[in-house]
Amino acid sequence: MNGPPKISLSIRRIGIDTWRENVAYLHRDCPVVRAAGFQALSKVEIHANGQVILAVLNVVDDAQIVSACELGVSEEAFARLGVAQGHAASIAHAEPPASIAALRRKIGGERLSKDDLFAIIRDVAQARYSKIELAAFVVATNQYELDREEVLHLTEAMIAVGRKLDWKLQVGAGPVVDKHCIGGIPGNRTSMLVVPIVSAHGMLCAKTSSRAITSPSGTADTMEMLATVELSFERMVEVVKATRACLAWGGTADLSPADDILISVERPLAIDSPGQMVASILSKKIAAGSTHLVLDIPVGPSAKVRSMVEAQRLKKLFEYVAGHLRLQLDVVLSDGRQPIGRGIGPVLEARDVMQVLQGAPDAPQDLRQKALRLAGRMIEFDPDVRGGEGYNIARDILDSGRALAQMNAIIDAQGRRAEMPAVGALTAELRASSDGVVVAIDNLRIARIAGLAGAPQVPGAGLQLVKKLGDPVRAGELLYRIHAQYEADLRFAQAHAEQDSAYRLGSDDQLPHEFARGTMFSL
Amino acid sequence: MNGPPKISLSIRRIGIDTWRENVAYLHRDCPVVRAAGFQALSKVEIHANGQVILAVLNVVDDAQIVSACELGVSEEAFARLGVAQGHAASIAHAEPPASIAALRRKIGGERLSKDDLFAIIRDVAQARYSKIELAAFVVATNQYELDREEVLHLTEAMIAVGRKLDWKLQVGAGPVVDKHCIGGIPGNRTSMLVVPIVSAHGMLCAKTSSRAITSPSGTADTMEMLATVELSFERMVEVVKATRACLAWGGTADLSPADDILISVERPLAIDSPGQMVASILSKKIAAGSTHLVLDIPVGPSAKVRSMVEAQRLKKLFEYVAGHLRLQLDVVLSDGRQPIGRGIGPVLEARDVMQVLQGAPDAPQDLRQKALRLAGRMIEFDPDVRGGEGYNIARDILDSGRALAQMNAIIDAQGRRAEMPAVGALTAELRASSDGVVVAIDNLRIARIAGLAGAPQVPGAGLQLVKKLGDPVRAGELLYRIHAQYEADLRFAQAHAEQDSAYRLGSDDQLPHEFARGTMFSL
Repeated sequence: MNGPPKISLSIRRIGIDTWRENVAYLHRDCPVVRAAGFQALSKVEIHANGQVILAVLNVVDDAQIVSACELGVSEEAFARLGVAQGHAASIAHAEPPASIAALRRKIGGERLSKDDLFAIIRDVAQARYSKIELAAFVVATNQYELDREEVLHLTEAMIAVGRKLDWKLQVGAGPVVDKHCIGGIPGNRTSMLVVPIVSAHGMLCAKTSSRAITSPSGTADTMEMLATVELSFERMVEVVKATRACLAWGGTADLSPADDILISVERPLAIDSPGQMVASILSKKIAAGSTHLVLDIPVGPSAKVRSMVEAQRLKKLFEYVAGHLRLQLDVVLSDGRQPIGRGIGPVLEARDVMQVLQGAPDAPQDLRQKALRLAGRMIEFDPDVRGGEGYNIARDILDSGRALAQMNAIIDAQGRRAEMPAVGALTAELRASSDGVVVAIDNLRIARIAGLAGAPQVPGAGLQLVKKLGDPVRAGELLYRIHAQYEADLRFAQAHAEQDSAYRLGSDDQLPHEFARGTMFSL
Repeated sequence: MNGPPKISLSIRRIGIDTWRENVAYLHRDCPVVRAAGFQALSKVEIHANGQVILAVLNVVDDAQIVSACELGVSEEAFARLGVAQGHAASIAHAEPPASIAALRRKIGGERLSKDDLFAIIRDVAQARYSKIELAAFVVATNQYELDREEVLHLTEAMIAVGRKLDWKLQVGAGPVVDKHCIGGIPGNRTSMLVVPIVSAHGMLCAKTSSRAITSPSGTADTMEMLATVELSFERMVEVVKATRACLAWGGTADLSPADDILISVERPLAIDSPGQMVASILSKKIAAGSTHLVLDIPVGPSAKVRSMVEAQRLKKLFEYVAGHLRLQLDVVLSDGRQPIGRGIGPVLEARDVMQVLQGAPDAPQDLRQKALRLAGRMIEFDPDVRGGEGYNIARDILDSGRALAQMNAIIDAQGRRAEMPAVGALTAELRASSDGVVVAIDNLRIARIAGLAGAPQVPGAGLQLVKKLGDPVRAGELLYRIHAQYEADLRFAQAHAEQDSAYRLGSDDQLPHEFARGTMFSL
């Protein structure tokens, strides 16, 4: 509002993708910059065609990028303004978004109301928050834990600002079942087994998954070894109509835009507080039209959740929010003390999944058992199935080959990949340095070594685990094999593995007793 | 380290000033982007000529900005790399800076060691932190208050990474005295009186000040109405050699680069926690070569510090850190319950200052008294001055005209401005709506109205206060006048003032008793 009357500038689209942050580019000699005392990184309001957007200012010294009478805008800002190049625009000092007052109260330790949280999430979704303000919100809600009312309102707010799928319109009435794991366990590819099993039972299960962020593979990365996963919404509906299921990448759906933006700052800070996790997961599931959800919370010393006390608290929080939002939720606390299956990395994991579906004698039993348990719980959402019968139904579907046939139908509907990439041909072997029993496997370390070997960027890279918890080993026996495609990756992964293999060997009595006789651990 | 072997790119300087954040611009079709799975806003390492810097990636779609085999770098990143355009470079996924582990521990509520804080501040100063990580540090150290050992180490770390002035080399041995106010009180321009007084007494006082950030004027803005304030370091030394003093803008000195970077995120969040404030102020003063400091902490309901308990805690923290760093510190708790002087805004404040120096009969007495008290405390740093004598010496210097002569010498040495800009010619008057005594004036509201009138961008804009605390007023009597240069600014400021004038009228008994008979409040 201050200073000289507004000067009109000409909009120029700058071909720079600043990912969810609007950037305005002004030349240092632009009269507005000089007159109004704008500085680099000032927040400015861009007025054009009756629209107002907020942007961060970058000052430009190169007239080829913008001239002194132009207002350059980044791709995202240009799209938001929706005007033609050359359109008149003016800029002004931006007032902070209205909800910043609520953010400051949260930084000060106060409880936020429903209106506060809706205002914050609306401003976040409209890209009115800078990265700095986003980070402040994420850290403040991490440190002063959100109470359960706040988490509920945060979830509702996230749903309110996004797109919502309604499968009734597309496919017809009936429950839409879903399954989700909070993550952190390498090789945990149960979705690729659960989806064909429950959809073979006749349930609608349109599963969208993420790609790996810091892990060696996400479900979308692994599924991509077999089929196309980047489906438009229209293609996804076709696949679901044809098969009652899909295993697609969820990145294109725009289901919870505020959550996507918050994740972009949570990720580099490695912040994953309970409240944010619950709001993030449940907002996406509800926006995706799910009516019933089985949620897998793995518990273990190197899992995201490290104790049963913590797991129970998280479970209650999920249940409270889901209950108020009328999502049928069944939380399963599972064994998170070691990786699931044998392969770690896109190709190696896809191989495990296919072995289980094919009933191969050497298929990893832990992956099979976990998938059957989860699928069983989902099948019990069917009102015609008696409590306790789900597991047996799931096992019958798997053992009869119906799950494999259904998986093939899904793969064909999405677009079958001509050939799965090869497993990395360069290998290194990690061997036990002494006799003993495997008493611990560090999930984080396993993920790191697989990542250094090249996963998930190099699809065939990763680890093949030979020993698991409770297995007796002799000195010199093979623990796992590293697969890589590039010599440098192999050397780097191997050097890390030799420093710390992620395996701890000990004696039988150091082993949690559930493992003492090699039996399956079950919480 | 992952993926295909490194591809060599050609460095191109991009004329975009991203202010303290290194940005790398890569074309979307660049083979590195495709092969290694880089995304917009990924953190990348740029390797060139044996150097490694961290940068945030912006993906470019316009080959005129960067082609597919070029690596564009922002101005700051280009300067840091120090190589020619066209030089070969490669990029890799960046590991987070090593100190991020310490940052995460602080987010988790832990106490940080000296080594942790030095590592964080080193990474901050070297621009290895993203805005997200900076904001996380600022919020985390705000919420889990730093203990005094942590504040000491943070201060030491900030000094260690910056440039340090040594006046002994430039001007000769002897104490270097300084004065600082933590801010928040409009019109509080005591530095422009204190510096000529104490330097007329023979002390070295090379004062650097800031410009307004959110206030209607900073000392540098007000001084600029009289003289040049943007001095190179060499010019500043000349001025100090000639006059034993200066009143310069501190923005060019690079005294505490880590602090400048942290302030860039504290400011938009309006975070100013005690630990950050102490480290920020003391690191800059010590880096500027000050040996003795008088620190002004105004206390009042709309000041930064709102109670005596809070003021005492802050005072102890300043004293603890200054003591360990061998800075002689004298903390003055002052009356922060209303603006100081009558003028608010660069020109109006400069007029107040000159009236006090000239001994004008209508000069604002509160500004004069406060400046004399502070100058007196500084003069008592002189070992030859008896305790309690400083005030009288300061008054003699002011009343004899020696302070005015010294101010003119400083103005001439820095470069006298031909003519002071005019006071804003458009005016609006704020009048009392009822009879009563002024029992409160809201500093924040006064600053806001002056800002809306155009200060500090429009030098002659601002407020002229006519009534102060304790003054009796009749309905319809003038409280203050708004000055503006532009009609829109005037209307906007006036509308805000009419909504809430910032003045509260009441009866004598609502007034803190120090004001009851119009006497000067003194803490």
